[in-house]
Formats: sequence, C-alpha cells, structure tokens
Amino acid sequence: MGESMKGLKRTIMCGELSEKNVGQKVTVMGWVQRRRDLGALVFVDLRDRTGIVQIVFGEEINREAYEKAQTVRNEYVLAVTGTVMLREAPNPDLPTGMIEIKGESLRILSESETPPIYIKENLDAAESIRLKYRYLDLRRPDMQKKLMIRHRAAKVVRDFMDENGFLEIETPMLTKSTPEGARDYLVPSRKFPGNFYALPQSPQLFKQLLMLSGFDKYFQIVRCFRDEDLRANRQPEFTQIDIEMSFVDVDDVIELNERLIQRLFKEVLNVDIQIPFMRMPYQEAMDRYGSDKPDIRFGLELVNISDVVENCGFKVFRDAIASGGSVRGINAKGCADFGRKEIDRLGEYVKTYGAKGLAWIALKGGEIKSPIAKFLTEEELNGIIERMEGKTGDLLLIVADELDVVYASLGALRLELGRKLNLIGPDNKELKFLWVTEFPLLEYDKEEGRYVAKHHPFTMPMEEDLELLETDPGRVRAKAYDIVLNGEEIGGGSIRIHDTKLQERMFKALGFTMEKAWERFGFLLEAFKFGPPPHGGLAYGFDRLVMFLTGTENIKDVIAFPKNQNAADPMTSAPSDVDEKQLEELGICIKE
Amino acid sequence: MGESMKGLKRTIMCGELSEKNVGQKVTVMGWVQRRRDLGALVFVDLRDRTGIVQIVFGEEINREAYEKAQTVRNEYVLAVTGTVMLREAPNPDLPTGMIEIKGESLRILSESETPPIYIKENLDAAESIRLKYRYLDLRRPDMQKKLMIRHRAAKVVRDFMDENGFLEIETPMLTKSTPEGARDYLVPSRKFPGNFYALPQSPQLFKQLLMLSGFDKYFQIVRCFRDEDLRANRQPEFTQIDIEMSFVDVDDVIELNERLIQRLFKEVLNVDIQIPFMRMPYQEAMDRYGSDKPDIRFGLELVNISDVVENCGFKVFRDAIASGGSVRGINAKGCADFGRKEIDRLGEYVKTYGAKGLAWIALKGGEIKSPIAKFLTEEELNGIIERMEGKTGDLLLIVADELDVVYASLGALRLELGRKLNLIGPDNKELKFLWVTEFPLLEYDKEEGRYVAKHHPFTMPMEEDLELLETDPGRVRAKAYDIVLNGEEIGGGSIRIHDTKLQERMFKALGFTMEKAWERFGFLLEAFKFGPPPHGGLAYGFDRLVMFLTGTENIKDVIAFPKNQNAADPMTSAPSDVDEKQLEELGICIKE
Repeated sequence: MGESMKGLKRTIMCGELSEKNVGQKVTVMGWVQRRRDLGALVFVDLRDRTGIVQIVFGEEINREAYEKAQTVRNEYVLAVTGTVMLREAPNPDLPTGMIEIKGESLRILSESETPPIYIKENLDAAESIRLKYRYLDLRRPDMQKKLMIRHRAAKVVRDFMDENGFLEIETPMLTKSTPEGARDYLVPSRKFPGNFYALPQSPQLFKQLLMLSGFDKYFQIVRCFRDEDLRANRQPEFTQIDIEMSFVDVDDVIELNERLIQRLFKEVLNVDIQIPFMRMPYQEAMDRYGSDKPDIRFGLELVNISDVVENCGFKVFRDAIASGGSVRGINAKGCADFGRKEIDRLGEYVKTYGAKGLAWIALKGGEIKSPIAKFLTEEELNGIIERMEGKTGDLLLIVADELDVVYASLGALRLELGRKLNLIGPDNKELKFLWVTEFPLLEYDKEEGRYVAKHHPFTMPMEEDLELLETDPGRVRAKAYDIVLNGEEIGGGSIRIHDTKLQERMFKALGFTMEKAWERFGFLLEAFKFGPPPHGGLAYGFDRLVMFLTGTENIKDVIAFPKNQNAADPMTSAPSDVDEKQLEELGICIKE
Repeated sequence: MGESMKGLKRTIMCGELSEKNVGQKVTVMGWVQRRRDLGALVFVDLRDRTGIVQIVFGEEINREAYEKAQTVRNEYVLAVTGTVMLREAPNPDLPTGMIEIKGESLRILSESETPPIYIKENLDAAESIRLKYRYLDLRRPDMQKKLMIRHRAAKVVRDFMDENGFLEIETPMLTKSTPEGARDYLVPSRKFPGNFYALPQSPQLFKQLLMLSGFDKYFQIVRCFRDEDLRANRQPEFTQIDIEMSFVDVDDVIELNERLIQRLFKEVLNVDIQIPFMRMPYQEAMDRYGSDKPDIRFGLELVNISDVVENCGFKVFRDAIASGGSVRGINAKGCADFGRKEIDRLGEYVKTYGAKGLAWIALKGGEIKSPIAKFLTEEELNGIIERMEGKTGDLLLIVADELDVVYASLGALRLELGRKLNLIGPDNKELKFLWVTEFPLLEYDKEEGRYVAKHHPFTMPMEEDLELLETDPGRVRAKAYDIVLNGEEIGGGSIRIHDTKLQERMFKALGFTMEKAWERFGFLLEAFKFGPPPHGGLAYGFDRLVMFLTGTENIKDVIAFPKNQNAADPMTSAPSDVDEKQLEELGICIKE
C-alpha cells in the first residue's frame, strides 16, 4: 500500500522550477518518467502536467530516500522534498534543465505496473490500445496539451460572449424526436412505456424559442448527438458552440463572429487574424472552386469552357453540353511534365467523384500533347488554351459532365493538386477564413421527389427571391452562411423565418401539408403566433475548431473519452447489456 | 406579414435609457407591454430584456407612426425610432420613468395573438399552463432575471476555477450503465442491438480517471441524469458543478471551495460571506440537530436525557432505553402557552417520522403541566428540566424511540418549530454555511442484509479507523464531507481511495466478491494498477445553488425548459411515440 501524504503539501509544480528557485526547499509530486541508477547516485525524472524535473538521490544526501529511490519504477507516484540546485551538466532539451532537486525525503504515494503504452509525446500505438487505456494515453504531454487548449478555447469563447451581452442558457438533453435530419438517439421513458425522448441533434428549436422569450442574445457550449454511421472525424456525441441573436440581419451575425474568431486565435495561439473575412456567394464558390467550402489558400481555380467547346469536334464535350451539362477545367500551372502514369492516376481520382474521365492538354515548350487534340481544330484548341490562360509548362485538366459532377470532381481534383504541389499540407500554417453566403434555400431530393431544406426548414429566404418560392423554388437563395477555414466548414447558420405566413409558404415548398408541419413542429408554429422577433444565429463544431487550434487531424485527439468507429468505448465497454429488470421497467424488449 | 427591419439598427436597449440620452435620436426594438390611447396621443410601453420604456406617438410627431401605433396590441414586436425627451409627468416606479421617446417612425416587425398568460412579474398561473407556454412564461421579467443570475453564476464559477488552475474537461454522455446507485436512463445502441448506453448519473468514474491521467485539477459544469420518481425540486436532468483535485486531503478541498462560494456570492449578489465556514462532524450534527444537514441559523438543539430517565417511573422512556433506544428532547423556549391542539398537531407531525408519540412538559409560571408528570417523581421531573435547561415559559418536547427515529423526528420537529417561531422563513436572508465531516463510510442496509457505501464505494476511510474496516465496519468514518447552506445540502464529496489493496478491502466490506467488483468497476480497478495519485473532490447541485442565489424555492424557476412531475415536457410533448422503423433499427420492441 502506498504511503500517505499526511502532513505534506506540494509547494510547486515540476515544470515551474527554474534558476529562480535555487536554494529553496520545495516539495513536488508526480509520476516517475524514468529512473537512472549511477551507483552512488539515483536520478529520477518526475513529471506532472506542467513538465519534468530531475531529482537526484544519494547516500550522502539522504540515505533513506536514496534507498527508496532505488526501488521506484516508471509511473510510480512520488512526493519529494528537497533543495533546488544548479545542475553540473545542464540539459538544454528540458525547460527545467538548468536545475535539479536534491532528494532529501521521498514518499512513494502509489506504485505502478508496467504500463501497456509508453508515456511519451507522439506515440505511435494502435488506436484500439490507446482507447482501451485512454487514461494512460491522456498522460502523454501532447494529449494533455490538446485538452488544455480545448479548455482555454472554451473559456475564451465564454469570456467573449459574456462581454458581448450573451447569456449561456442550458437547453434540455431529454427532448422530442423530430424525424427531419439525422438519426436520433432515443431514450425510453419509464413513466410512459412505449414513448421515447430523443437526445438533441442541436438545440435549434430551443434557441429559437429563447429568442421568442426575449432573451435577445443566447449562446451555449453544448453536447449534441447524431446516431449516424461514423466517418473519419465524426463522433456520435460532439460539442457545438451554439449562438442566436434577436433583431439582427446577416451582417450583424457575421460581424460578431469575426470578432469572436479573432479573439479566439489571438488568446489561444497568439495569432493575429485579419478581419473582416472575405465573403463569397455560394454560386461563385462553386464556379471558382467546385466546392461550397473552398480552400482559398491557393489558386488552381475552375474555368468554364462550355461556350468555347459547345460545337467542337470532340463528341464527349459536345454531348455533355447538349444534354444540359458543362465542360470545365483546371490549369495545373507548371505541371506539363507530369508523366502519363500520374495523369492516369488523376483520371482515376476524378472517377471516384462520378466523372467519366479526365481530358488533358499538356503545353510543353511549343509542343502541345493531348489525346483529344486530334478531335479539335487548331482554333478550338487555341480557344481552350486561351480561356484557361495556358502557358508553356502548364497542364490543362478538363471534365465534361452534369454540372454537379463537374463541380465535385474538379473541386476534389483541385485539392489533390494542391496537396501534390505542396500548396497546402501540414507545414502550411496559413489560416484563410471565408464566409460562403447566399446558399440555395432548397435542393431537390430525387429520392424523395421533393425539395428539401438545404440548411433547415426555418431558414429565411433572401427578400429579393421571395416571389420565386412558389414559381421556381430551386432558385431561391437563403440568408444562410457558412464559415470556412482552409477548406473546412467550421460553422454555419442563418437568419430564421419569424413570420408564420412565410413559414407556411416554406412548408408548402417542402411538400409538407400543414397537418404534417404541425405534427412535427407544432410547438414552434404555435409559439410563433405570439410576437416572434427577427432573429438568426450560427453554430460551430467546437471539436473541429479545437482540431485547428491544436493542429491535429484526428477528432479523437481533442475529446477526452471518444468513441471508436463503432460508436463504442473500449475502455468502459459501453454500450453493454443491462439487467432484464431495467428493460421490464421501461416496457421494452429486445428483438431476437 | 410583419415589416422587415432592413436598413434599421437598434441603437440602445429599452432599459438603458435615462436622462443622459435626452435629445438623442435612438432606435429601440421590443415587445408591447401595453398601449394606451389618449385621443391625440398613443402611449406604448415597449419591453426588452433590460426593461421598459414609454414611447409617445402623436399626429403632430409623425402621422404615419401615430396611425400605426393605434393598431398595435400587447406583445406585438416593434422597432421605433425617435428622440428621447424628459417626461412631463415622470413615473418614479419605472427605472426609465424620467424620460420617454417621441415616436417618429414605427415598424411592426411581428404581430401577436392574445397570449394565454400575462407577461408580468410574479404571475400566479397554473404550472401546467406555464410549462406548456414556457416561451411566454420566460418572457416575464422575474423569470428572465433568474436565468441571467444562472448565467452569471456559471460564469463566476468558471472564472474562479480557471484562475485556480482547473481545466474544464468534457466527459461522455453516452456511457456504461453501473447498476449501483439510482436508476439509469438507457440509450439503445444501433450498432450492437440489445446493448445500451447509460446517461451519466455523475462523471464520478471519469473524473477519477482524469486524475489518474495527471490532469491534476479538473472541473466541469455538466448535465447529469437520474430516472427516479420525482419529488419536489428534483428533475430527471440536472446540472452539477463537478470538481476533482490531485495530491490533496480534506482541508485542501474545503479551503478551495470556501473561496469559490465566497467569490460566487460576492460577484452574483454582492454579499460578503465569512470564511472559513464552521465544520461539524456527522455525529455531532446528529446529536445536536438530529440531521446531517442542520440549519444552524437557530438553536432549539436536541438534548439527550436518556441517563436521567433510564430508571424513571414512565414506562415508555424506560422501555425505549432498555431496548437500546434513546430519549431526547427539545426545549421550545417560550412556548409554554402552546394550546393543547397545537401540541397535539406537533405530536402528529413527529409520528410521520416514525415516532410513537411526543411527551411534553410545559413550565407555566411556577406550575408544571405535563401528561407524564404523574409517572415521574419530583426528582426525575426536575432532573429532566435541569438537563434541558427549562425555565418558566418553556415547553419541553420529548421523544423516546430507536435512535434513528429520535433523530429523524426531533430533527424535523426542530425545523417545524423554527418555521413556526419565524426563526427561519422567506424573510430570513441570513446565509449559514456549514461543513459536515467524518460521515460514516458504510451504513447497514437491512433489506439487502449488507453494508452499503454511504457516499460511494471509492470513498477513503479515515486513517484512524482503517483497522475497523474488517472488525466493526459500521464505525469506520470516511473522509467525506457535505457543504450545507441553511439546512440544505448544496454539495458533497470525499477523498477517494487510490490504493488497489484498500479498494479491495472496501469491496469486501460491501459484501462484493472481487468477481462482482471487477464486473462492475473493472476498468477503474484496472486503471488503478498504474500509479493513481491521491485525489478527492466535490460536486454541487448547480440548480440548487442557483435557487439560493435567486431566492426561489422552485427548481423549475431556474431551468429554462424543465420537466413536469411525470418527467414530461408539456411544451414539446416529450417523451412521445416514434416511428416503428426507428425501433427496428435499434432491435427493440415495445411490450404490450
């Protein structure tokens, strides 16, 4: 059994020690990082969350402590009292490397078996092991630092929102299932057997009701839940920074959030972010980048050559346009010397996005190489090169297809080229924020045979497009906006409809009968009879934001106890079976 | 449809206006509190979350605005632009009563039907209506103020904890069911049909693991869940301030929390709280107050007269002691003139706590009135009076029973007397904090025929009592403490066991086989093999704390969207039935 720390108080943390403490008697407590026996002396590196300090034990310093020190092993928990001294051989790799502690007394507070993973930075262990022994994985200094940054980020957000008059108001976790959207996690009710709560996918309806209640400015850092099959960087439970404001329009929401982001990056990373951010309408983002979350750190923009090749000799191009599609390309600057194999690889790559193929024109020192040149007149070929601003050394890459396939495949190809040409990548520390605005209000769902809300059914159409809601719903633009950082959507929101009649028109456009709308959103529609203020807001994926702040590409690195790809926790073995009695009380049974 | 606020910006909030703004042109937005038509003038009181301001519309000010103003009704949402003027007839009841706004332009942003509840302070409407129209109930200024105080309290806690080096770390909501404790809310897993997550009753195990991970100081303001039948002031989901620290003993936890409470009451209410708080061992609290959460704002303490009456002539007293019980009483100072009816009522009252009756001795000006006097010698009677410090005018109230019944009934009687004598009550603003310490580690559960943990199975025994763990477990005191405010437990915690061998002894004392212990808490026991630090912590019921800060006795007043007594939400009608398809995906069915 470990020794008691009775009568003992820690006086300083390991990483706080420096030359300033020389001569002081201190007590530190922490974990053994390593022990080295050098005969007459035993050196122990002791670790706490602030850093590591070296302690030297010796027969001449204190015999009892020295003998005990010989028995300690990695990850033992020690309390050490001693005098701080300058080191004879300073260690420049350690922040505390100028000093060491003379170990004058030692208590072993706790012992440790050999841990199944190394407690060190940048460990390369299997994820399953890291998750099973998460408490040891979290001992690693790089993991600790990430959760410290997460704490700091949440604190800065709360400070900023509070200073700006926002109230953090907690909304329920046990709420009502609303089948629009992703799949809900359900919670059986014991009082009403056969009935269920749902865990919230977001506090959307509640935050709108809080505006109706006159709270004026609301925010919350809040857990949300989606029972979806997990892709990389998705977790079944995730955290959102949720914001809503009354008496505002798009500019107000954007202006507030730019200041929030600026403050966040300044206080957490000491990085200066210039505001305002660039804004780009959705259609422009699609046309120039093939994406509604473009990475604007580099060019390689899409070029529309449809009008140039409309009547050209290459049937693939001609047919694509004739059947309502489009022909567009990217000028891969300076890539004319890509080998055939590499170009084929890019061709395969765009096929995964639905493209049927990738046409190319390589402009090599006066000579033009292209498998499609033979189908084109010189005028047509020059027309393409001119439109795409092709210069010697460039490689023109072209896709002809339905417009959404062209966008998707060229948008992905652009990113692939960006990575290949090292325009983006782990060493690129640039931060480029962008607002994408004027999203379509609706998009046609072929499967359902109706329009569905692109953002959600409460999103306000742009005034200019209101009359199109009944005549040409697909063309209505919304007061919706996403905030994009380096090609990742980190947040999004909209101004909401606050008018019952307009809300009814919206439900009609979605193909809902009013009965169905009331069945699903009745309490919101009821509430909106009683003086709803104009309002709008935004929500950030907080985990994602913290990934940027910590420089990790793995969402599990910024969550203390994440789930694996099966939404399970190998450490606690959740989910697990439960007593039959529990199910009986809930009035449910398990299907065989 | 309401008018747009395009081109319009709010320049100030209603409640912020004062003489300082006279002559300024302002734009305010808010809800119509009331409208008064005085022929040539229309007065509108406009409300936002900061307060109310009067606006005057007139034909001579602006004809269009004046005509529109005649159409507005209560709870319409308006945007008004106009010049601030001194009022001819100031209203001293209104903070903005010195001024009014000349209504120079008016937009009706949103209309309202007549709301089903009045939007005013201290509404006396049925709870079911208030919950159904919660968004209107929350418009009432007193409700808004309570949630503003809640926001401020959470902010102060976070500021304080951050300044003191604590990291807020989020723990999972989808976790493992551990049948020890209250009933879990379960969440069926789709990936593993027949398996369930549980919503956390508290992050207890996770915060201990975070200490094991070396985070040193953790806190979280976190939602917790208990599926219990709801008594008054219980909610199925509630919020906890959860705190855990490493390398500490009882004094460290107490000292930190006293500073936290002091800061909280100072910043939220501008009230100075003296620290340190009084500390009282559990046994003393029981003996003096019959309660482990005594209200120490008044006396009326319990007095043990067992030794005085051990061999007296009154059989009820004698028998109680002979069968191992106790005889104790309260001296109700100055209550000798209580009528027979009132004393009978108190007798009935203690019976609800299991007492068989209430003996009494009234000391009226020289004369002693008591139905038990005839069974006692004068010496015995005087012995009782002397021990209970009875003076002329006092009423001595006595219970003889098993000790726990004596404590429960006299503890309750004491509070009842306190209320009756106005020693405590709504007008008493005194705040008396108390630490109750040295709780029993275990208590015997007659139903289960074994000891169960009084706090939880990870609570550290006091060093002095360690050897009793096997020989006399009921006498082992724990390093557990509750923080009590005016007779309500607002938080509690303990130093935890950090030694695997001691933990095994604890499980044995609880009658667990090691197999059972591993089955239930295996991952914690596994973790504790790898160098757990000494640690301990505390958790507050945040909702309860906010009840004190807002001066309400109803927990629903401090939660934006609470559940009713059936754990249901009349507003959203959660819980509700769900699509058969959802249940199929989860592999569960509903029992008929």
